[in-house]
Amino acid sequence: MSSSFGQIFRISTWGESHGAGVGVVIDGCPSRIPVSAEDIQRELDRRRPGQSEIVTPRDEADAVEILSGVLDGLTLGTPIALSVRNKDQRSTAYDEMQHTYRPSHADFCYDAKYGIRAWAGGGRASARETIGRVAAGAVAKAVVRALYPEVDVVAWVSKVHEVEAHADVYAVCREAVEGNMVRTADPDAVGPMVAAIKEARAQGDSLGGAVSCVVRNCPVGLGDPVFDKLEATLAHAMMSIPACRGFEVGSGFAAAGMRGTEHNDAFFMDGGKVRTRTNFSGGIQGGISNGEPIVMRMAFKPTATLMVEQETVNDQGEDVTLRGKGRHDACVLPRAVPIVEAMAWVTLCDHLLRQRVADVMPRG
Amino acid sequence: MSSSFGQIFRISTWGESHGAGVGVVIDGCPSRIPVSAEDIQRELDRRRPGQSEIVTPRDEADAVEILSGVLDGLTLGTPIALSVRNKDQRSTAYDEMQHTYRPSHADFCYDAKYGIRAWAGGGRASARETIGRVAAGAVAKAVVRALYPEVDVVAWVSKVHEVEAHADVYAVCREAVEGNMVRTADPDAVGPMVAAIKEARAQGDSLGGAVSCVVRNCPVGLGDPVFDKLEATLAHAMMSIPACRGFEVGSGFAAAGMRGTEHNDAFFMDGGKVRTRTNFSGGIQGGISNGEPIVMRMAFKPTATLMVEQETVNDQGEDVTLRGKGRHDACVLPRAVPIVEAMAWVTLCDHLLRQRVADVMPRG
Amino acid sequence: MSSSFGQIFRISTWGESHGAGVGVVIDGCPSRIPVSAEDIQRELDRRRPGQSEIVTPRDEADAVEILSGVLDGLTLGTPIALSVRNKDQRSTAYDEMQHTYRPSHADFCYDAKYGIRAWAGGGRASARETIGRVAAGAVAKAVVRALYPEVDVVAWVSKVHEVEAHADVYAVCREAVEGNMVRTADPDAVGPMVAAIKEARAQGDSLGGAVSCVVRNCPVGLGDPVFDKLEATLAHAMMSIPACRGFEVGSGFAAAGMRGTEHNDAFFMDGGKVRTRTNFSGGIQGGISNGEPIVMRMAFKPTATLMVEQETVNDQGEDVTLRGKGRHDACVLPRAVPIVEAMAWVTLCDHLLRQRVADVMPRG
Amino acid sequence: MSSSFGQIFRISTWGESHGAGVGVVIDGCPSRIPVSAEDIQRELDRRRPGQSEIVTPRDEADAVEILSGVLDGLTLGTPIALSVRNKDQRSTAYDEMQHTYRPSHADFCYDAKYGIRAWAGGGRASARETIGRVAAGAVAKAVVRALYPEVDVVAWVSKVHEVEAHADVYAVCREAVEGNMVRTADPDAVGPMVAAIKEARAQGDSLGGAVSCVVRNCPVGLGDPVFDKLEATLAHAMMSIPACRGFEVGSGFAAAGMRGTEHNDAFFMDGGKVRTRTNFSGGIQGGISNGEPIVMRMAFKPTATLMVEQETVNDQGEDVTLRGKGRHDACVLPRAVPIVEAMAWVTLCDHLLRQRVADVMPRG
Repeated sequence: MSSSFGQIFRISTWGESHGAGVGVVIDGCPSRIPVSAEDIQRELDRRRPGQSEIVTPRDEADAVEILSGVLDGLTLGTPIALSVRNKDQRSTAYDEMQHTYRPSHADFCYDAKYGIRAWAGGGRASARETIGRVAAGAVAKAVVRALYPEVDVVAWVSKVHEVEAHADVYAVCREAVEGNMVRTADPDAVGPMVAAIKEARAQGDSLGGAVSCVVRNCPVGLGDPVFDKLEATLAHAMMSIPACRGFEVGSGFAAAGMRGTEHNDAFFMDGGKVRTRTNFSGGIQGGISNGEPIVMRMAFKPTATLMVEQETVNDQGEDVTLRGKGRHDACVLPRAVPIVEAMAWVTLCDHLLRQRVADVMPRG
Repeated sequence: MSSSFGQIFRISTWGESHGAGVGVVIDGCPSRIPVSAEDIQRELDRRRPGQSEIVTPRDEADAVEILSGVLDGLTLGTPIALSVRNKDQRSTAYDEMQHTYRPSHADFCYDAKYGIRAWAGGGRASARETIGRVAAGAVAKAVVRALYPEVDVVAWVSKVHEVEAHADVYAVCREAVEGNMVRTADPDAVGPMVAAIKEARAQGDSLGGAVSCVVRNCPVGLGDPVFDKLEATLAHAMMSIPACRGFEVGSGFAAAGMRGTEHNDAFFMDGGKVRTRTNFSGGIQGGISNGEPIVMRMAFKPTATLMVEQETVNDQGEDVTLRGKGRHDACVLPRAVPIVEAMAWVTLCDHLLRQRVADVMPRG
Repeated sequence: MSSSFGQIFRISTWGESHGAGVGVVIDGCPSRIPVSAEDIQRELDRRRPGQSEIVTPRDEADAVEILSGVLDGLTLGTPIALSVRNKDQRSTAYDEMQHTYRPSHADFCYDAKYGIRAWAGGGRASARETIGRVAAGAVAKAVVRALYPEVDVVAWVSKVHEVEAHADVYAVCREAVEGNMVRTADPDAVGPMVAAIKEARAQGDSLGGAVSCVVRNCPVGLGDPVFDKLEATLAHAMMSIPACRGFEVGSGFAAAGMRGTEHNDAFFMDGGKVRTRTNFSGGIQGGISNGEPIVMRMAFKPTATLMVEQETVNDQGEDVTLRGKGRHDACVLPRAVPIVEAMAWVTLCDHLLRQRVADVMPRG
Repeated sequence: MSSSFGQIFRISTWGESHGAGVGVVIDGCPSRIPVSAEDIQRELDRRRPGQSEIVTPRDEADAVEILSGVLDGLTLGTPIALSVRNKDQRSTAYDEMQHTYRPSHADFCYDAKYGIRAWAGGGRASARETIGRVAAGAVAKAVVRALYPEVDVVAWVSKVHEVEAHADVYAVCREAVEGNMVRTADPDAVGPMVAAIKEARAQGDSLGGAVSCVVRNCPVGLGDPVFDKLEATLAHAMMSIPACRGFEVGSGFAAAGMRGTEHNDAFFMDGGKVRTRTNFSGGIQGGISNGEPIVMRMAFKPTATLMVEQETVNDQGEDVTLRGKGRHDACVLPRAVPIVEAMAWVTLCDHLLRQRVADVMPRG
């Protein structure tokens, strides 16, 4: 049950880095939603390696195939199976990893948990697993948009190591983000971020960073008290992305240093609609969306794969050293952007469908 | 399905603030675990109002009754129903709230979502809901301890508004935390924290803060790739606590500013056991516990209930003002500590049981 | 997870026969459904012991209390907790059962599974567990009726030992069923059935039987391919009732002896509505309701509790004999009727809500 | 959520009859279980069309590919994705079905439920969906056998139309069943069954029948009170197989005509093991396996596809007639046998894993 997410719109990813392929099955997608392979491929292309000079050069086209659940461009209401074949990989680059645990990677823990692991290229813990998420996110987006065309989700890199992006979270637009290879929203940060990433790569090092994400025009009423509050399921979704170390919504950690008189968002009527003067709540109150923009921020640790010699142990319980070889993604942040958006769409879609069964009686 | 948490050890809380009572049903608890009403009551007493001069004075004994699932001090393997009756409340204090939405409370969102709400005292969104969590946490703790007696979970208040607690997260002990009314781990912070809370209360204001939590001696191998990574389910659990706005594990948001060469935790052999030299991973790698202490930090916003006049709207769509009356918890942090611990125990217990079905073959 | 049923409208029963009480928590019930304690009590009264001279004389009022989830007669959208206290029981009648396994009872299996059991009165395996089901069924009925007022579920005793009831399943009405103490639909069968039950009781023996159930005016489209076909979830629901040994829908076991040319239900247009000339499908095709009456039949074994001496073993692994004492329900069939109806309502309600998320786009 | 089955060992099938392929994802399979494509293929070959002269001649090799979750013949603990490509089909044979509803098929109900359907060859309602079940069953069998090598499941055709097989359910062996093309256990029934099927086919007609199934050496303690009783989940599993109309366990419908003194299974000690003198309980008491053979029987309706002219309606609401063309399976029973076994293995496997978390404390 570990590889599934969602209660009604339920996605199950499968696949190892160097097995036959990776993919996802989506169960619970409503019928007659327009979905095309092109829509899905567009998102996968934002995530795939080799798309720019600052991401890992692994060369995979990552072409998606729709195996089921869609007929003539419309969903059937049946499970949608999406698959991407892995290309043949020169796995000799990974031979050393068969018995040696890479520091801060999942290698040791998989062995400890399962007594076995697909050692080549990270196996199930590889970032290739996120292909299924991005593909499912494209379908989730289609569902949400079919019901609420105005909903939008935009994520961007808001920090790379010491470089912070300064942007108005309410005004950030996708075009600006996609217009630079680092996918940030601050034009002034592009140069320093790219430079920092290139420098780290030259050193065989890697950099952490942060992604921010805003959901605009979210309908009021999404999120299920008490355990599946909207922010709790978003946190679950985001913290399940590899390398994510922190999640905050609205005022986030800054809330810890605030007073109620500062933090409370005063309600007011705005042309017949209930709005709030400020948005420290980040669009969610009592676990339920209030119609204001939902604002999140996620911290990502620096990639664990380094091209330097590191102290570690092997599966015989011996102290050894390991020096990374082959490809190396010095900063995952640019490619994390479509993954964050995908998980947001999946979470929103599930809550949208849940809301249709929470309140079924006509309003008076 | 919104009020349930856990896959195998599954808790379902129920109850409104001013209904007949609140409680929890635990389905999936293994048999023959020693559990007593006293164990549960002890944790509830840490959470209940009126326990010190800095928490809300609502006077409720919150006496738990075990309705099912336990016989002669042992669990039966059947659902454990735990119930706490509400005392009669003078709900006239809440009359104004029947039609007016308190700023940054759940009132408006519940009405928007369900078209109805239990308006007295916050209804389902009241902190009384957490009674079920704390009770379930006591049972979860009993299960974990029956299997792994050495596991320990300790949470403490690490920040109140501008006062930070300085403590060695690996050395914090429960006795020190329980020895002061604010439940912090830094003796020097107690006075300033208490003073800040009292001052805020005198002003009718409230304060945000942070809770830290450490899990010690966690077995290796807990956590399910890919969506139910240990940190993802912990984030879900913690972010579902009322007023929680942020979650981080290990290096957390600081990871965003780090390099891989700093952040990677080198493995080494320590008397036959795999250990790491540093613990930026916070005890979790690839979503699976690695045996090092699990370290988390959660941000809580200031309580929304204020004894000052605030701008808001009513359910007729009119701009109005509202001034809080009656009881007022100026800082929820001291009472959040047992809730955080309870959610950690519940999450660990569920993952412990999941691990028993992930790896069933004898190790070679 | 064993004590929960349903995906969206999810019920979780709890309670042992001789513990503090029994009950149910319903999570996922939509808001603003009219529900009253009286509606629930009416169904419980049909199920309770002591209601006529042919059922077990255990005297329990089985008064339900609504603990949460309902305000002023309307559901809140939050969990509905329903509880019935057990009366003090003279458990000395059960002393012998503490160590001796009653033949064809659950005693041995509970001990084998859990290593412990609530031995008094059957514990969790007691028919008292069905109180939670019947209470939940009353709520499910309220939900279904709020959305589709014309849906009706009627069950009746169609066989007691050798006495078969002859009734037109499409014409059976509740009044006729409730008008006789054995709850059959055939006036000519009442006398022989009552006589057979009384004779069995006089002999300390018990009788098996069958319950039939028809759902009328079921909306088209309920049931989820492929595993949660409507008949599959109905079978799950019915076979989970204590003593149920067989389930059939539509033509049922008779289908095994039929030809396709006999069995196929020809479609025809009936005033703009698609109907079938025959109903061997029992109202379900491809796992989905087709609008025709849903017809089911369930077999129940004779009660295992007998007032005669029986060969058995004890928990020390010794061959012993056991002679039942105290109360004795010679035929569970009359009381099974409201339980069957409750499980049908719960299953229909869950599928009705599921259908609201299967097809969300406007029809062309 | 409709296409998934199981709580811990969870299978999700996908695929339409004339889409790219069909398959299954298994989440929750334990690690280090020996599994090979050959094991899976062997079961698929028992299910595939064209294997004998009495089943549908559709010619598909149905070659399985393991896409993930298995490395060097051992499961990884990660999702196992299994896929079978569909061959190109001459779908012109189905053109008429695009707008006309075949009687007693799923066509009308899919359209009514989803507003769309994959009309060629039955789409999702095609028997090809069961490929995923049979593949998953082979994996489930490997898991059960790895833990309990002696468990066995044998199914056979016990009835075809008017021909009953007479066999000792406790002695039936797989070799005898697989040794005849109709897969019955009674050598005397083979001839009449084959003759009946051939005659029906010659007439363009079809025949119903029954499959019996026995589970031998099932460990004591499987099955979860109260809703997931072993017989209830088996009923769910079996009734979800296309064309299944009835399910009974142990005494089944015959129990309705029995007395308690006949039906109760007396316990006795058999060399330190608790056994029962009779087995009317069918190996299950209180929803839990008692170690005796589990005996089930399932009724299947005659195939709905007939090569005769039938009255029906089209999607324009017009009365029309339809005459089947192309391939035609006059009796699904022989191919139902491996499907029944697969569903039994999947259900047992899930309960075996559940049992590992129900009772975790050492026995005294």
